[in-house]
Amino acid sequence: MTMSVGTVYLVGSGPGDPDLMTVKAARLLETADVVLHDKLPGPEILERIPEEKREDVGKRAGGEWTPQEYTNRRLVELAREGKTVVRLKGGDPFVFGRGGEEMEHLAAADIPFEVVPGITSAIAGPGTAGIPVTHRDHASSVSFVTGHEDPTKEESAVDWDALAATGGTLVVLMGVGKLPDYTAALREAGMDPETPVALVERATWPEMRVATGTLDTIVSVRDETEIEPPAITVIGEVAGTRENVVEFLRNRTGAFEDESATQEADE
Amino acid sequence: MTMSVGTVYLVGSGPGDPDLMTVKAARLLETADVVLHDKLPGPEILERIPEEKREDVGKRAGGEWTPQEYTNRRLVELAREGKTVVRLKGGDPFVFGRGGEEMEHLAAADIPFEVVPGITSAIAGPGTAGIPVTHRDHASSVSFVTGHEDPTKEESAVDWDALAATGGTLVVLMGVGKLPDYTAALREAGMDPETPVALVERATWPEMRVATGTLDTIVSVRDETEIEPPAITVIGEVAGTRENVVEFLRNRTGAFEDESATQEADE
Repeated sequence: MTMSVGTVYLVGSGPGDPDLMTVKAARLLETADVVLHDKLPGPEILERIPEEKREDVGKRAGGEWTPQEYTNRRLVELAREGKTVVRLKGGDPFVFGRGGEEMEHLAAADIPFEVVPGITSAIAGPGTAGIPVTHRDHASSVSFVTGHEDPTKEESAVDWDALAATGGTLVVLMGVGKLPDYTAALREAGMDPETPVALVERATWPEMRVATGTLDTIVSVRDETEIEPPAITVIGEVAGTRENVVEFLRNRTGAFEDESATQEADE
Repeated sequence: MTMSVGTVYLVGSGPGDPDLMTVKAARLLETADVVLHDKLPGPEILERIPEEKREDVGKRAGGEWTPQEYTNRRLVELAREGKTVVRLKGGDPFVFGRGGEEMEHLAAADIPFEVVPGITSAIAGPGTAGIPVTHRDHASSVSFVTGHEDPTKEESAVDWDALAATGGTLVVLMGVGKLPDYTAALREAGMDPETPVALVERATWPEMRVATGTLDTIVSVRDETEIEPPAITVIGEVAGTRENVVEFLRNRTGAFEDESATQEADE
């Protein structure tokens, strides 16, 4: 390694509210030479990055996605030019973020890197909606799974039977579209159809919305409320805690199931 | 609600590195009237709180723990005095943090509150050690579980069979002491004894240490390296990625398994 090689920071931007970025992420956006990003960090965070530092590796003109290989190559190229590079990822870089692949590519190319964790929407979404993902009385474990499985993977099927059997909270990321499939799978696996379920759309963004139902009703609730991606699904007894607390909850959160409970952001 | 009632902020302090606090948490430590805390946020964060604002609700003289009921009462009392109160929790308030109980107590007492998520060591510990908790090639899900189950709970047993069957990454918080028990349970559940396992002690603290082994060897590794709480355990193929990248990893991290790979903090 020569001294002229720059460091790449794999940085999680958190769930979208700029106040929920880490102190370190906020500082790195100021000090980095270049920030490679896609749309996932959300508009409030992206507009804080000086225009001249921004390099969009998300959707390209024509609607195609930039291949991961391009992003990997570009990170190495910039670091070899001596640049301090931030690779900004929505949420945490290592929670369904492909940060692991980028890290391995950097190491294989002899590029020094640092990991700056971020808050995943899988925890912040439920949390700011008044739903603790674990609870002494309700859930001894919590599992995160993606609703968008990579179909090219050899063992592509998430084991919904096993996840149901854990008895803990399940949080599904990117799971709006396949909601009918996995709620059916969980019912078939023996999960109580009355199990509370919550959908949290655009967690911590100004337009955050929350809708609640049960394993049986949540698909109709989704259709009625027109909840759309990006959203996360929380399945488990803990999802029922929201209704007991939402009147006093001062987070950014709209509520469909009880309009009177809608709260305004307090700052 | 009268205007004289203060708001309680249930705030996650993150894993211990003050730079991994959120912008909002850092600001609230400045602006709050009082900060109720225990030892879990770690010394680097606690020493940033002005002495006159600090109220320790952790271990008391004599080694006893302050009962949760006292903390609940004290939060309500301070809010009713019109104070802006921060309840500072290590990691995220809702990941094995009893924040759910505090939230419910506040709502029942008509106290407005806000949830400020923090980064859990269950994600940041592996992440800063070069271990992605999910990975396109290795893990489609990740489950978090505590090694300290509440023995008074009716169904106290974590279902290790089901957790093993998910095929995803398992992260055990507070799991140093019971490591022999649950690694045995996972082997009995059919998990490959060669499955990589990593222990991350004091994740993101200056004295962070990492030790790695397999499901079969990790108990001896723990004993040889004298890994002690607080630490988290990462079980799954992803734990094996660290060795491929650690040479180029610039996070705070000591390594037992390969002394040459020990990295110094870069700031």
